[in-house]
Amino acid sequence: MGITILTVGKKNSSEYSDMIDEYMKRISSFISIRMKFIKDSGNLKEDRESAVKQESERILKEVCKEKFVILLDRKGESIDSERFSDLFNNNNICFVIGGIYGVDERVKKRASRIISFSRMTFPHKLFRVILLEQIYRGYMIHKNMRYHK
Amino acid sequence: MGITILTVGKKNSSEYSDMIDEYMKRISSFISIRMKFIKDSGNLKEDRESAVKQESERILKEVCKEKFVILLDRKGESIDSERFSDLFNNNNICFVIGGIYGVDERVKKRASRIISFSRMTFPHKLFRVILLEQIYRGYMIHKNMRYHK
Repeated sequence: MGITILTVGKKNSSEYSDMIDEYMKRISSFISIRMKFIKDSGNLKEDRESAVKQESERILKEVCKEKFVILLDRKGESIDSERFSDLFNNNNICFVIGGIYGVDERVKKRASRIISFSRMTFPHKLFRVILLEQIYRGYMIHKNMRYHK
Repeated sequence: MGITILTVGKKNSSEYSDMIDEYMKRISSFISIRMKFIKDSGNLKEDRESAVKQESERILKEVCKEKFVILLDRKGESIDSERFSDLFNNNNICFVIGGIYGVDERVKKRASRIISFSRMTFPHKLFRVILLEQIYRGYMIHKNMRYHK
């Protein structure tokens, strides 16, 4: 039960940690939330295919028990914050943030939905903040509490 | 000359200031950049129309001397980071982030382009970080420097 964020890459560095801690704290008043870091396999172009494969395997191993998996992908379905908040009718969600070159077809097939926040590319650590803020906003919308305009 | 960010609302609060300072510093190695705060007119629903009008007037007063104005709007044109980096062929850009209810038609007409980062709604202070990171990324792409994958 609760929300899991599986994110490929290193732990949160200091310049982002204040914001991440703040949103994690706020969300945890609604539901339990944890962030689990998946080891990356390097980011050199020549290793691209094997890195994606290895990282995808690590993700699949973690999501096996999670019912409702949402993959965050730049090329996924673009939705607004209100539609995003509809996700929280479900109280067992696993969000997946892939590595620098994305994930392979197996992870895409495993996902219940593939959602895009933006066509733009963001650093992983900033994207974690963006996702957490939208999860918090989603609960505020869902519970009809003042935050979202 | 340089980049101006006109942003409606209060100054950066402490939880975002580390990231904002960091990106401002990085961008300033390429081009001069300043962030100018435009007074907001409140965010009560009943004052919506007059707030938008007042804020838009303050924006128009500031952009009058700026040639190339980019309005950031959730409903604008959605582009990726590579296309965004093409903007930096121009070295005199004014980005406009409107208030909680957006801007009026006059600001939209004054803008050379209206660009959307996401269909989602973000807090203004977080959006400033997101914009600064894309400007920095834009210069790194433009100058063919290693940062963007």
